[in-house]
Amino acid sequence: MINAHRLAHHLSVLAAIREADAPAHGTTRRAFTPAYLEGRQWLAARFAAAGLQVSIDAGGNLIGRLSGSDTTLPPIMIGSHSDTVMGGGSYDGALGVLGALEVAQTLNERGMRLRHPIEVVDFMAEESTPLGSLLGSTAMVAGLSDEHLARDVPGWGTLADALRRVGGDPAALKTPLRRAGDIKAYVEIHIEQGPRLERAGHALGAVTGIVGIRRADITCIGQPDHAGTASMDVRRDALAAVAQVITTAEHAALSRPGTVATVGALDVSPNQSNVIPGQVRFTVEMRSLDMHEVEAIWQEIYRAFDAACTQRQLSYTIHALHDSQPVVFAESMVATIDAACVAASGSSMRLPSGAGHDGSMIGLIAPAGMIFVRTLHGRSHCPEEYSAPADNLASVQALFETVRALDNG
Amino acid sequence: MINAHRLAHHLSVLAAIREADAPAHGTTRRAFTPAYLEGRQWLAARFAAAGLQVSIDAGGNLIGRLSGSDTTLPPIMIGSHSDTVMGGGSYDGALGVLGALEVAQTLNERGMRLRHPIEVVDFMAEESTPLGSLLGSTAMVAGLSDEHLARDVPGWGTLADALRRVGGDPAALKTPLRRAGDIKAYVEIHIEQGPRLERAGHALGAVTGIVGIRRADITCIGQPDHAGTASMDVRRDALAAVAQVITTAEHAALSRPGTVATVGALDVSPNQSNVIPGQVRFTVEMRSLDMHEVEAIWQEIYRAFDAACTQRQLSYTIHALHDSQPVVFAESMVATIDAACVAASGSSMRLPSGAGHDGSMIGLIAPAGMIFVRTLHGRSHCPEEYSAPADNLASVQALFETVRALDNG
Repeated sequence: MINAHRLAHHLSVLAAIREADAPAHGTTRRAFTPAYLEGRQWLAARFAAAGLQVSIDAGGNLIGRLSGSDTTLPPIMIGSHSDTVMGGGSYDGALGVLGALEVAQTLNERGMRLRHPIEVVDFMAEESTPLGSLLGSTAMVAGLSDEHLARDVPGWGTLADALRRVGGDPAALKTPLRRAGDIKAYVEIHIEQGPRLERAGHALGAVTGIVGIRRADITCIGQPDHAGTASMDVRRDALAAVAQVITTAEHAALSRPGTVATVGALDVSPNQSNVIPGQVRFTVEMRSLDMHEVEAIWQEIYRAFDAACTQRQLSYTIHALHDSQPVVFAESMVATIDAACVAASGSSMRLPSGAGHDGSMIGLIAPAGMIFVRTLHGRSHCPEEYSAPADNLASVQALFETVRALDNG
Repeated sequence: MINAHRLAHHLSVLAAIREADAPAHGTTRRAFTPAYLEGRQWLAARFAAAGLQVSIDAGGNLIGRLSGSDTTLPPIMIGSHSDTVMGGGSYDGALGVLGALEVAQTLNERGMRLRHPIEVVDFMAEESTPLGSLLGSTAMVAGLSDEHLARDVPGWGTLADALRRVGGDPAALKTPLRRAGDIKAYVEIHIEQGPRLERAGHALGAVTGIVGIRRADITCIGQPDHAGTASMDVRRDALAAVAQVITTAEHAALSRPGTVATVGALDVSPNQSNVIPGQVRFTVEMRSLDMHEVEAIWQEIYRAFDAACTQRQLSYTIHALHDSQPVVFAESMVATIDAACVAASGSSMRLPSGAGHDGSMIGLIAPAGMIFVRTLHGRSHCPEEYSAPADNLASVQALFETVRALDNG
């Protein structure tokens, strides 16, 4: 029923709209860049061609709307985001937007008018940028603070200016754009970005929720000294203490299924082969659907780090210790999606999302759900990112069934 | 007997000749910079004022010569280097050059003609530069290869051009400038750059030798993945393996007195808080007077690293594994210096040098020795680098006595 050829064609066209000076492989179409604006112009034209009423809200979200038969009902929202990371792939975000478009276009082409309006949405700036992430969905459910809008990043300008460039209206973001009751439900197709579906042999999965994240940004301060003349017993080597964090983080998460912990960014100063590291700034982040697990991992890491610092006469500064709370999707939504996945592909499994998504924001004001698509080798945010055409098609069929079920619910 | 006031004055004048755009604190006078050339012009004038015959050899070494009474005898060479690291101090190198000048000037002023000529030398480019280190002393005892002379570093030019700027002659470096027998002995005053003299309560120490160094430059290759979606059991986290190197290096050197091991430089890629480190390039270096100890530490580190890589399905490339051999100073030289230190300051101790010095090159063709001076808190290569005027004076007195003893030996 879904037009498989058109879906694949749309994916390949959008993948080719990318930043000119970015790496040759993969797709780089970061939010606010000229390539991003070009991609959205193309998307807006596709929305219009599908018979959707196109608009950009104050938060910079591109929305294509198909009216419903009952004008008193709130819309069912479906979509994802069209921005990518630097050196990213062609499916993260794009599949969710183009899959949602395909559902709306199919409904329209077949004259299947639902009770609820359908809104196909391309959320602005989902991926990390120097100006923030999840910007469009945050603007939608919470507005954006004046402080955030004034954030000025060299080469990017202020968030307010960036937002204006994509058609948003910073002045209208003092209050949320949508409130509880304004959205019937939100459903998003997204590649899994992990190995679980592939390993279990399922094309699709129903997402049970989005993990909570604790992210710490820490500087460990010792003393830079000559690597030859400072004997081992007088050293204050900051990197030696941070090594304990790396080791403890790995061990703590390995021993708690369903959790992850990562030291991803680490900068050594002065970073010379013959100088003892005087300072190390690093991040550690922990994720789980259960914040008690996150707290337990953090305590284990913190105790090891604090002891390693005391032993070596080091000090440390925790610049930020930020939590984003987990979002647990409603059982009724998960069950609906799970059944739609079985109907579309013959099988399904339930699994949490380890990554943040716009659904974690929209989930604050409306029932939200996600359909995960099997991802080759679990790779994403890289040129090798891939989900097979048959799996992509099945995910759109599952979304179609989910929307129909929600419309009747 | 030594002119304490002049020594202190010379130290303060040379410390004030520094790069204009360098950090305000400390002394930055890197080899080949305009400030370096200005410092050497000032030094050459001081050499001339002291009655020394000034020249620059083909290797760019500034030499002030005082003739001896026996024209058949080779010179006793004394000195150090006038270049510094970026953000360095005012004593590392400078004290050795100005202390040697003071010895020669004192001999001349007092009409004390020795049998051997005295050569006061300011070795070119002792500190690490992008063009290399120990350049002047290497040129003196071994020449410089065409390949090395042609090395072209953005912002520095080729070594050949840099050498010409300081008055050297690249074309004359195909063979050594001096050979065994050309130098009677080499003695250098240098700050200890470590805590041992200060802790033991001695102003001066006799250096027993210069440690050997093994330096490895390694890239560990895993796979960059999303820090949320890639579960712990499928990760190929390069940083997790390198943490084992850091921990093992510290432990292995702590358990072997007289050795040190350091992971000083470490670069993570892609270095983002939410991406698993796909690649880590790092250095590890190990030092000891005994290369068997270095080998034992390396084996311990290598085994731990290799196992950590195997466990996580990582690969690695060892870009370079370079050894510089230790130099053990002759017992007669150490004994002569030890006695001179006791005579000058009332006490002394013997200790190895953990840092490389020009003495490790000159020691290849002549008996070499070093006088170490107590260093405040063992700090060097930083603005806080300090050795007290009384200790500096005592070191010059000890050098004076050492030279007289060598002249008679």
